[in-house]
Amino acid sequence: MSTASTAPVPVSRVHHWAAEADVLVAGNGCAGASASIEAVAAGAEVLVVDAAGGWGGATAMSGGEIYLGGGTSVQKACGFEDSVDAMYAFLKLATGPDPAEDKLAVYCEGSLEHFDWLVRCGVTFVPKLWTNPSWEAPTGYGLMYTGGENAYPFADLVPPAPRGHIVDMEGKQPGERSAGWMLMKHLAATQERAGVEVRYNTRTERLVVDGERVVGAEVVSFGERYFVRAWRGVVLAAGGFAANPAMLAQHAPKLAAPGNFLVGTDNDDGRGIRMGQAVGAAVRHMEAGQSAFPADPALLFRSLLLNGRGHRFINEDTYPGRVGQTTLFQQDRKAFLLYDEATNEEASRQAEHVVQPTWVSDDLGELAKEMGIAPEVLAATVATYNAGAARGEDPECHKAARWLRPLVPPYGVLDLRDGPYGVFTIGGLHTSTRGEVLGLEGDPLPGLFAAGRTTSGIPSWGYCSGTSLGDSTFFGRRAGRAVATA
Amino acid sequence: MSTASTAPVPVSRVHHWAAEADVLVAGNGCAGASASIEAVAAGAEVLVVDAAGGWGGATAMSGGEIYLGGGTSVQKACGFEDSVDAMYAFLKLATGPDPAEDKLAVYCEGSLEHFDWLVRCGVTFVPKLWTNPSWEAPTGYGLMYTGGENAYPFADLVPPAPRGHIVDMEGKQPGERSAGWMLMKHLAATQERAGVEVRYNTRTERLVVDGERVVGAEVVSFGERYFVRAWRGVVLAAGGFAANPAMLAQHAPKLAAPGNFLVGTDNDDGRGIRMGQAVGAAVRHMEAGQSAFPADPALLFRSLLLNGRGHRFINEDTYPGRVGQTTLFQQDRKAFLLYDEATNEEASRQAEHVVQPTWVSDDLGELAKEMGIAPEVLAATVATYNAGAARGEDPECHKAARWLRPLVPPYGVLDLRDGPYGVFTIGGLHTSTRGEVLGLEGDPLPGLFAAGRTTSGIPSWGYCSGTSLGDSTFFGRRAGRAVATA
Repeated sequence: MSTASTAPVPVSRVHHWAAEADVLVAGNGCAGASASIEAVAAGAEVLVVDAAGGWGGATAMSGGEIYLGGGTSVQKACGFEDSVDAMYAFLKLATGPDPAEDKLAVYCEGSLEHFDWLVRCGVTFVPKLWTNPSWEAPTGYGLMYTGGENAYPFADLVPPAPRGHIVDMEGKQPGERSAGWMLMKHLAATQERAGVEVRYNTRTERLVVDGERVVGAEVVSFGERYFVRAWRGVVLAAGGFAANPAMLAQHAPKLAAPGNFLVGTDNDDGRGIRMGQAVGAAVRHMEAGQSAFPADPALLFRSLLLNGRGHRFINEDTYPGRVGQTTLFQQDRKAFLLYDEATNEEASRQAEHVVQPTWVSDDLGELAKEMGIAPEVLAATVATYNAGAARGEDPECHKAARWLRPLVPPYGVLDLRDGPYGVFTIGGLHTSTRGEVLGLEGDPLPGLFAAGRTTSGIPSWGYCSGTSLGDSTFFGRRAGRAVATA
Repeated sequence: MSTASTAPVPVSRVHHWAAEADVLVAGNGCAGASASIEAVAAGAEVLVVDAAGGWGGATAMSGGEIYLGGGTSVQKACGFEDSVDAMYAFLKLATGPDPAEDKLAVYCEGSLEHFDWLVRCGVTFVPKLWTNPSWEAPTGYGLMYTGGENAYPFADLVPPAPRGHIVDMEGKQPGERSAGWMLMKHLAATQERAGVEVRYNTRTERLVVDGERVVGAEVVSFGERYFVRAWRGVVLAAGGFAANPAMLAQHAPKLAAPGNFLVGTDNDDGRGIRMGQAVGAAVRHMEAGQSAFPADPALLFRSLLLNGRGHRFINEDTYPGRVGQTTLFQQDRKAFLLYDEATNEEASRQAEHVVQPTWVSDDLGELAKEMGIAPEVLAATVATYNAGAARGEDPECHKAARWLRPLVPPYGVLDLRDGPYGVFTIGGLHTSTRGEVLGLEGDPLPGLFAAGRTTSGIPSWGYCSGTSLGDSTFFGRRAGRAVATA
């Protein structure tokens, strides 16, 4: 991780431009790739650099879910109606506080066009719905709920539709790793066809400024530093900051709790964000992050999720990332799953990873002692749950009836207080809907654009699977179009 | 509130310096005043400017509590032992996650010296302990617990001592408003004796930079703009950003929930923070804030505090600001107080403001319906509490025995879901223990210093009453000494 200064270089100190292009894109994950493809389509000559040895960044490690809606062909083929309004209403509720209303509006309005663009890039989605609780769908399924749309409270507020579109893995070759990798493969192929020059093992270190305007950058490749002139502008698409311990401590210490692990690459060191800040960019919601709940959803949905005092605090059948965020940020990461043998067997048949409970007992009092909670509280929690479940209701947390069944001894408890939560950051540079980086007073910084997790985007605070890839590709494209005509 | 650009002015564009000093201090609250006093003591000529018509800022509106310890004469006179180690251990626990360990170390080590300095400035503290639950002590009391030191969980972890030192109000004149106002009166008098020039109605708009070095600022007074040369450096002590809706939305939307009110002045518009960011400063924990729980502590301590699902979530007898932060940040501001007639009468005899319950009933089920929570949960919560209280225990939240008594009908419920919480921001510029403003890579920015709520300080995330005035005066002094010899 580079800790070299991100202070910008005045153009007067640049004596030689070793490369030039209309547009320089820093980072070749899905945001940078999308930006480069659209910038070329808008007539610009584009150079992309990436610190890694190849394309992909965190995208290539992801599950390849893209949050799309408003009535895609996949949604229709699976029998779902959806609308721009419903999509917007849901995301506004699910991504706050302070949802990015301006971005949500153009994102939902443009979702069908974006779906078509992805298909033109070679991405395919199998029109088949996956409904079992899990983080990802198996090969052969292209649609799933990824935000708790069909669970309390959202299902009562907005007509639910599944919007997690999963990039198809059919035709996967040996060594090809995930649906996110597959998305990148298609984008990189499209990028190559478009004639974009990409230089790998090339890290963007500092921006070059002419007065207030960004006119290029200093890059480093195998120890060699050189300046790249960007006639129209620079797009920062260099990922988040989950791999930067100092930035995590400063902004999002809960994400850095011991045992949590980074979902991303070592290049997610926040350098893109700091380069923007160094020329006066504003940031948004730097404390925010996605945190995957550390248990298989197949078990989570069927269990009682308890906090450190033995209380339930969320319906277990909502999006497991929402459960993870709530547990990490609101319950000090103190979580237990309580279940019984039948639950364990049923969940295990479907679970991706079968786990053993930390403690097993017929006696709730004994379990309460192990958990360090008041036995009368645990008894009351189970009694309330069981009484409701017997009549098909969850008066406390409103889990859907299909997941309810009174628990009977022996009980198992899975201790999740040490996580680990898989985390990544979602705060970053403040940008306009055109991908312009905005300054401290909200005005665009001339010549500077950004996309992906270098920015704060659609997942403003609350997260749904697919909103990061969706935001990165959608607003990456917009940044590419904007910089090409800047 | 000024929304003019905070982008720095290159010194080449300054054709006339209308004023000059060794040190320019922006803001004359307790941080700026302390900085100016110490800078003069270190031999510097100092000019202080403040956007308001007089001294004080948010300090003058505060309760005048200063967090001091390690065995002050006031603590000793009240019969308490304290140590630097205990003070440090407590603050490290209470102000995290990510407590400012470097600042805590020098703060605790220097606390006795700082007490003496305040006394030399004319501040007096009555050596008498106030123990009733309340936000502030009445005149005639100079010491109280202000961080939950003597409550769960801290009392079991660190030897408790009261450290909230309250500035004495004896000799108060008509028009003098609060203990915080009294603190400022003494600091302003000391500042005047030291020969500090202060210009009011003078807002600092932008910094002036010579390359990377801050060499002055542009100020505005009644529409007239002029440049002030600062030979040694500038100290930003211009308050937090609770009066800036855009910054609250970007960083701390929960503080901006409808009905919450700002504790501070209209000049807490974050301009000091943005001027620092505009020259490359890092920020820390911009999402953090103090939020006063919206009920009288006299009632809170004796009641059951319930969340939106009818569960208790914190011992009601800890510091009410801690309760407020927890409710606002972890419980989505959903809070009810449940109590009975005897509690209400007892609390009312001591309460600063007697309030009527929102609902009264003999029937918990009826109250649960009004509260929108499951009746079986409310019944279990009360049953658990009453059973414990009958034997002098609180197995669930560990409230101290003196506040426990089984509740009997009729019950009253106070609905606090709409707050209002009195809030201020505690995130801000990242500074060293010497008050140097630190850049994005952690290196000091030449010529730039900051103190008070323009910075992230001792109350890094968790807050205790008195830590803000304590941090502002202590690190204000250090900034003043550092800039004077820069």
